[in-house]
Amino acid sequence: MRVLLTNDDGIYADGIQELSKAMQKVASVYIVAPDRERSAVGHAITMHHPLRAERVKLFHNPNLPAWAVNGTPSDCVKLAVEAILPEKPDIVVSGVNRGSNLGTDVLYSGTVSAAIEAVISGVPSIAVSLTAGENADFSPAAEFAAKLAATVLKNGLPQGTLLNVNVPGLPRNEIEGVAVTRLGMTRYNNEFEQRVDPRGRSYYWMVGEVVEITNCSDTDLSAIRCNKISVSPIHFDFTNYQAMDSLKEWNFDM
Amino acid sequence: MRVLLTNDDGIYADGIQELSKAMQKVASVYIVAPDRERSAVGHAITMHHPLRAERVKLFHNPNLPAWAVNGTPSDCVKLAVEAILPEKPDIVVSGVNRGSNLGTDVLYSGTVSAAIEAVISGVPSIAVSLTAGENADFSPAAEFAAKLAATVLKNGLPQGTLLNVNVPGLPRNEIEGVAVTRLGMTRYNNEFEQRVDPRGRSYYWMVGEVVEITNCSDTDLSAIRCNKISVSPIHFDFTNYQAMDSLKEWNFDM
Repeated sequence: MRVLLTNDDGIYADGIQELSKAMQKVASVYIVAPDRERSAVGHAITMHHPLRAERVKLFHNPNLPAWAVNGTPSDCVKLAVEAILPEKPDIVVSGVNRGSNLGTDVLYSGTVSAAIEAVISGVPSIAVSLTAGENADFSPAAEFAAKLAATVLKNGLPQGTLLNVNVPGLPRNEIEGVAVTRLGMTRYNNEFEQRVDPRGRSYYWMVGEVVEITNCSDTDLSAIRCNKISVSPIHFDFTNYQAMDSLKEWNFDM
Repeated sequence: MRVLLTNDDGIYADGIQELSKAMQKVASVYIVAPDRERSAVGHAITMHHPLRAERVKLFHNPNLPAWAVNGTPSDCVKLAVEAILPEKPDIVVSGVNRGSNLGTDVLYSGTVSAAIEAVISGVPSIAVSLTAGENADFSPAAEFAAKLAATVLKNGLPQGTLLNVNVPGLPRNEIEGVAVTRLGMTRYNNEFEQRVDPRGRSYYWMVGEVVEITNCSDTDLSAIRCNKISVSPIHFDFTNYQAMDSLKEWNFDM
């Protein structure tokens, strides 16, 4: 198994090192990841400045083929598949992200966008996030991801589909199993805090608390609340097919 | 009708001025848009630096309430709805973008992401793009958008659904009508061009040609090829519901 790892926390982040350690037990590992943190970049790509890929040595294994790119997670996957790697990888694993990527938040996620980019390039993929911040132990998530990658290659996934995985930030023996989930719907309340700078001009910080709008037991948010790993199959076809029929009745005025 | 306009080409771009002129005939217009071009930012949001919204005067109507924001299109919509506008707008129109947003490319589009952000905030929305670059005439697209906004408010759209509109870059009398479409599937061929800088280090430019993978008459790409305006209903639920059932049969190894 030839696996490409990437992330949005940057190539030196703990999550990708831990993922790499777990993956090396079962696969040939390549890493192509951003040279710095690129959180909340969504599905951004770099068109207006050139990309550079610098070969780097990682602390946990200096011999590992690893490149730091001055671009977004989506750039890293495109560049790796099209220009850097000697052969197409069998699978792309993006993560382990520090912090969850649940519900509507996947839209903003560089971690998930990198995995979507892989699927667009015809490579199966998994995005993996840990729902914990400081002092997180990434190893349960990394080891689950390594096993899941092998299962994905064995079972296959439908065309254009990837898995978005969130792992509770808990010791391994407190994780209550795995749930196949759909994405919940979230939004933010009280999104901005207005402040005034020393020169009297106002500015805004994005703040706000996540509120789940869906209230069902089969969402990713619900699985995490029950201390389970959530596995959501997602795709990138935004078309609302149901709405097409009713729109065809509309009278479009040119 | 109270309408919020935004875009990803920046507040001073021709497309949003022309849109504003057409909209003012039928609505009270507010503009909150990026202070500079933000193309291909996808659904990025700004969390790590503060946002500023500066009141600006636009050439075509200096009295129009308009703010330039140092953020992405998604930031503009969030900030407008949550902090700047006196009341929630009835509808958000994003565009008119210089260049198409068709098929898989909507993933990278700041124009479309702004419209998705509106729907997340509970405001109906339309994204409008013109499939032409230099010396484009934005007025047919702007006028179509103004009429469509009124139709959307009259007919309503399903929860969480917006319209992604692409208008052919043609004189009005050469446009062959309106088609309700789904998003085609596209990918890029020969994506990167490798060059060597004057100091001998290599770098990459993103290049590549769009190739349509779908080959059907009901896609947005097909409508544009037939000189029609495409109207695609899209939503932001990435879940692949069909895949959930087969995944539940998998043996997840923790």
